[in-house]
Parts: sequence; structure tokens; C-alpha cells
Amino acid sequence: MNVALLGCGNVGSGVVEVLASNGETIAQRAGLPIEIVGIAVRDPNKPRSLSVDRRLLTTDAAGLVRREEVDCVVECIGGLEPAYDLVMSALEQGKSVVTANKELIAKRGKDLFEAADQMEVDLLFEGSVAGGIPVVHALKESLAGNQVTEMLGILNGTTNYVLTRMSERGESLESALGEAQRLRYAEKDPTDDISGTDAAYKLAILASIAFSSRMAVEDIFKEGIEAITPADLRYAAEQGYVVKLLAIARAAEGGEIELRVHPALVPQRHPIAAVKGHYNAVFVRGNAVGEVMLYGQGAGSLPTGSAVVGDIISVARNFRSGARGRVACTCHDQRKVLDMAKIETRYYVRMGVKDRPGVLGATATVFGKHRVSIASVVQKRSAMDVAEIVWVTHLVQEANVRGALEELRGLPVVQEIGAVIRVEEEE
Amino acid sequence: MNVALLGCGNVGSGVVEVLASNGETIAQRAGLPIEIVGIAVRDPNKPRSLSVDRRLLTTDAAGLVRREEVDCVVECIGGLEPAYDLVMSALEQGKSVVTANKELIAKRGKDLFEAADQMEVDLLFEGSVAGGIPVVHALKESLAGNQVTEMLGILNGTTNYVLTRMSERGESLESALGEAQRLRYAEKDPTDDISGTDAAYKLAILASIAFSSRMAVEDIFKEGIEAITPADLRYAAEQGYVVKLLAIARAAEGGEIELRVHPALVPQRHPIAAVKGHYNAVFVRGNAVGEVMLYGQGAGSLPTGSAVVGDIISVARNFRSGARGRVACTCHDQRKVLDMAKIETRYYVRMGVKDRPGVLGATATVFGKHRVSIASVVQKRSAMDVAEIVWVTHLVQEANVRGALEELRGLPVVQEIGAVIRVEEEE
Repeated sequence: MNVALLGCGNVGSGVVEVLASNGETIAQRAGLPIEIVGIAVRDPNKPRSLSVDRRLLTTDAAGLVRREEVDCVVECIGGLEPAYDLVMSALEQGKSVVTANKELIAKRGKDLFEAADQMEVDLLFEGSVAGGIPVVHALKESLAGNQVTEMLGILNGTTNYVLTRMSERGESLESALGEAQRLRYAEKDPTDDISGTDAAYKLAILASIAFSSRMAVEDIFKEGIEAITPADLRYAAEQGYVVKLLAIARAAEGGEIELRVHPALVPQRHPIAAVKGHYNAVFVRGNAVGEVMLYGQGAGSLPTGSAVVGDIISVARNFRSGARGRVACTCHDQRKVLDMAKIETRYYVRMGVKDRPGVLGATATVFGKHRVSIASVVQKRSAMDVAEIVWVTHLVQEANVRGALEELRGLPVVQEIGAVIRVEEEE
Repeated sequence: MNVALLGCGNVGSGVVEVLASNGETIAQRAGLPIEIVGIAVRDPNKPRSLSVDRRLLTTDAAGLVRREEVDCVVECIGGLEPAYDLVMSALEQGKSVVTANKELIAKRGKDLFEAADQMEVDLLFEGSVAGGIPVVHALKESLAGNQVTEMLGILNGTTNYVLTRMSERGESLESALGEAQRLRYAEKDPTDDISGTDAAYKLAILASIAFSSRMAVEDIFKEGIEAITPADLRYAAEQGYVVKLLAIARAAEGGEIELRVHPALVPQRHPIAAVKGHYNAVFVRGNAVGEVMLYGQGAGSLPTGSAVVGDIISVARNFRSGARGRVACTCHDQRKVLDMAKIETRYYVRMGVKDRPGVLGATATVFGKHRVSIASVVQKRSAMDVAEIVWVTHLVQEANVRGALEELRGLPVVQEIGAVIRVEEEE
């Protein structure tokens, strides 16, 4: 099977490397040899790894996609343009496509899957979510007999590395992030990671599969880790929790879907709490399988290359066995996203208050007035006439908490609402 | 697609249940409705769950397999006979087969896969290993671009439950096993679980896929958890380890494969150390993907039903898309199993010795003579003139440890070698 590779950066060079190192095994497993017949790049003169055969390089990506000998197009460019046009062109020519492009699938998936279905070709995208972890395959195939009720993901390695470091060493966000950048776990501009944007793309893709309904990135509630302090991680640990940037999709009552990315307190005994450093994981609850978790490296040239090559092998097996349009788009349902104000969860609230008699009562009264029931309250320390109070609530609707916090912010004795972190724990 | 179900016990009734509960979603995802047209059972009069349509029951399994309308045969009988004859008959008639039968695949896989390949039909077996965890699919498809270098599995929920309970509550093996039986995590006769036999079947299946070479159950070194005491678990914890019954497959130098099932000390920071209770997990290291772990329920009617139905959906997608023999047998290699005496690992040795001067030196000298280098030694307690010494070695060949232990057993000051547990940790 002849493959055209579009893009030879971090992911593309990983694909070349994996096919070069493991080519013989791959050919035997796939049932036929897989050959890269062309690689479209922006700059053919850039220094590259030895595995890349320079004679294959071209700057004419569209021409490469059109070449008759090409059976499968592997898109590793990233971003919307020119990736979208090239992928669409390949599909329209009846060529199967493998992509590792989260933005492309999350934002333009609908058009692309329709085109693939119409032409009865494959459009596979394992590499677009959680690097080498085979979660797309698992949801689309192995777990397809389930109704998924809940999905919790650690889908961003940068923030998980930062939070792990802050938690284990008491470092500040800035310092941990600097170290992540030094180790290349974080990019120079880490905004998309820290703010939850990267995780939201991936959540949109996974939730669309899990709930058989296309979920839009814009409908995902998103909060980053910017406000988390080492103190929050310490207080959380004292109460048996770790803090993770979670991507959550959950079937709510009434058929709507909760979709949100935000820092969350997770009980230490939850399997996802053990996921440390730059690792990713996806925890899935299905009505047949119960709890399943998949864990691994969510990024990197070779792990993502592994996912892309797995998809290429899948295309090759379909090619060899005569399968046409084997796995069609599964978004046959239309589920609504639950209004964030209506979600029910628990909350960790850290606030600074004036250290004087009656303040605890006054603040507690405000929570009570908004029907926010308190599970625990700890006064953490007192300095310069300011005490830090940490509350953990019982299950309550987000709207009530928002109401309470707004009123609390207006109280003269409340100096600041330091952190509000949702607590993902069943009661 | 018409399905014949053979067997309607624990797994078979789970399959019926999943297809009944999630039938509509499954039909949409598979691209066509899946219907059970007959269920072969031993006793049609036995009480069964409401999801089972009694009009479908028959005692004539062979006749059901032969029925022309049947497209896919789902074998949930277990054991070698009559399962083997029925599955072979289905394949020879050009019908795809889904099975959850570990013994059948581990012992007779070769014949069956050859028949399936010849007829270009599917023989899928996700449910035969680790219940609902999609590990067969992951190894066969998503991770197929990798050379697997190492696989560590917790493949038996009974022993993991027992070890977890012994570790967390200090209970004896007997007491923890009794509780496992009460909760139905263990069978009345738990021998196959406790001795590692069950895990060895599953390891043979997974290693055959991971190393593209058929591995025989008889070639797997096997040791059960019978000799583990709560004291061992406590001593292990003090040194930063947990004890798990591990199924290990590892590529050794020279192309041979280590294949072994035995209790092992695992560092608490290893992802597999966090797998508790009756849960299973498979940790895989590949040369592209790095570390991946899959976690979930390794047994049970619905989790295994989930795996079987995932395979049925796969068959249905092949059926609908015209794929013939999409994933052929991948055992194209012939790898030898490394002689157990030649493996290199670390060892935990607990022994009872006479509590008198010079004994530590005398025993240490024996280890040294056999070139067993000691990483740590702790004298645990002393009672009735007997001291307990716990040794942890550096990396050493098993043959050397065996030699040292044989000589130690002959020393008059050594009362007993209480436990010898391998330590799975890189140095």
C-alpha cells in the first residue's frame, strides 16, 4: 500500500521512524508492505533525521495527494488550513486518510466524515487524541457495545506534569511550567495547554464517539489551571484528594451531556489519581463494561507515530481484505449539552477572610441561604489579620454556588475568593 | 446479521443482556441490526434471566451452527470440548466466530486460526483475556506498529482481590479467599486462580499476539500465591513495594522470550501497583508507544459480555463492508522461550534463622559465594530464638539464586526459607 505523508515535523517524522524501524513486522501484521511514496514539506532543505529519504520530499502537497499510485494519505500538518483542503481532496478522490489533527477533527469532522462515508473510504484519527493511547479505537470498536455514562480524561500532559510537580515539590505554577518547557513537555507559548483549550478539542472528539453525537468545542465549558496554588494542592492532599485538569463528559438525567474541562479534586483512591507527570489517561464508565481506564503518553513523536501507524495498518487491512467504508461515522444521535449552571457536583472553595469572631458564621450563613450544604470546613492559617478558610460542599447545583460566591464577594469581611475547584467524587 | 449463541451461562447471558439493553445503539454503530437466532444450552428448563427468549433455546448446538441463516457463531461454552468441534465446524462452513474461551484459544488456537485464515472469516477472542479490557484489540490493531519489549499483566481478579485484602487488612490468605468466595470473585474450587493456571492461559494468548509467535501454555513458568503471608506484604510495603501476581512476557537478549506467572514485588510508583481489588490490568512497553496500561474488570458477566459484543460488532462491520479475512493470524515468527534458570531479575528472600552471633555473616557468605549481590538486608523480628531476615538482591540470574538457596537450606542455622519472591524493578 502506498502512503503519501503530509507534514514531516514532530508527528510526521515519528511516523517515518516507526515505519522504518518496525517495517518488516508491520508488513507481516498488515498482510502487505506499506511504503511511503512521497512526503510533502514546507522546506525540503531543513535538516531531518536519517530515516527520511530526501528523494521523497516535495513542496507540492496537493500534487502528491493527487498522484495515482497513492492509496492512503497521512496528514500530519496540524491546524485547519491547508490540512482541511488536502484531506477533503484525498477523500473525494477515494483515498483513505489517517490524521493526527485534533483541531481538524474537532472543528471540521462532520464534513470530512460525510465525505468519507460517501466515498466508502476510511478516515482514522487515533493520533489526534492522547498520543499513543488507543482510546479512539477502544471507544469506536471494543467498547461499542456499551452506553457510555461517564468519561474522565487527563488529556493534556503539560498541565498534568505541572500539577504533579507543584504537588510533589510545592513549586509554584511558574516554576513548574518553566521546568516543563525545559523538558519540552510544554511549548514556548503554553496558553492552549494551561487554559484547557487543547484538552477541550480532544474531549469534543472523544465525547462525540462515546455519545454517538457530534459535540462542538464551543459548547465545552473550559477553565484552566491558572488559579491553582501549591497551597490548594496541599489542602487537597490533607483531605485525601489530588488535583487534576480533568476533561469530563457525563450523561446527565434527561439525556443531556455534561461537557467540561477544568481543574478538579479527585479522591486519591480513584484510578485516575495515580496518573502522574506528563502521562495521560482516559477513564470510561460503560453500562456493560463498568470501569475501564487507558493510560500512556499523550504526546511525543514516537507515541503519536505509534497511533498513526496503527491506523495505517488498519487502512492496509481494509485495503487488502476488500472492506469498503468499514466503520462509518457513528454520530447518529443529537444530544444537547447541559447548561453549566445546571450541573451538580461538589466544590472546594478557598477564601481569605478577616480573622475575627463571627466571620465563620457569617460566611456559612451565606452558603446556607443559597442552599449550599457544607461537608467540611477547615480554617487553615492566620497571618496579618487574614484567615484562610477551606470549604468542601456536598453535591449542589453550580448556579447555587455561583450565587453564594457572588454574595460572599460582597461581604466586607471576605478579602478574596482564592480558588473554586470542583470535586469529582460520588457521595 | 444473524448470530448463533453457544452457551448461556455467566458469559453467554451477559452477551444476551448487552444486546438486549443496547441493541439500538449497537445496530446504528455496526451499520446493521444484530439478531440472536438461536441459543444452544445443555438444559432448556433451567431458570434464566428475562432477557433470554426461551423460544430460541435448543440443545442441538451442532445443528444450530449448521443452520443456513447463521452468519456468526458466538461460543460461550468454555473448555475444550465440545467448544473446539463446534468452533471448527463453524469456521469450516465459512462462518465467523467470536469466542470468550481462553483455554480453547491458548491450547488450540493454531488449528483454529489456520482454518479461519483459509476460509477468510473472522475468529475474534477479546473476551478470552481480561474480561472487558480491550487488550486483544489494542495489541492486534492499535499497537500493531510496535515491537513489544515487555508486558506485565494482572490477569486474575481473584488473586488480586486476595492480595489486596491481605495487604490492606493484614488478613491471612485463607480468610481473604473466603471473603472472595462469598463475593463470588472466587470459585468454590479456586485452585486454577491461586496457582496461576488461569493467568498462564491468558498470558499465552497475549504474548502470542505481542511477539507474533505462538506461545504454548506448557512453556510458561508458573508459581501461585500459596506461600505469600501478610508479613511478606508488610515487609514489602516497608520497602516501597506491593505484591502482585504478575504475568510477565519480556523480550530477552538474543531474541528469546521470558514467559512467567508468579507473585512479584512491584515498586509502589509503578502504574500497575495501583491496580487493586478484583481489577485487572495489562501494562505494555512498545518501542514506539513507550508505556501503555489498560485497566478494568477482568471477569464478570457484563464486562466479558461487553468484550464479546465488541467483537460481534467487529464481525458485523466486516460483514457489511465486504471484508474477507480482515485480520489474519499474526503468529508469523518463531520465538523460543528463555529457560527460567537463565532469567535475570531481583529477589526478595525471607528466611528464619537461629538468633545467634555470626549467622548473618554465614548466610551472607553463601549468597556471595553464588555471586548473588545483596541490595538490602533487614532483620525483622526475633522470637523463640528464631530471627527473621529479609534480603533483597540486586539483578542476578535465577540459577545463582537457586544454587544459593539450596546451600542455605543445608545450613544448620537456617530454620526455613519462608518466601522467595521475584522483584520486578529496573535498577
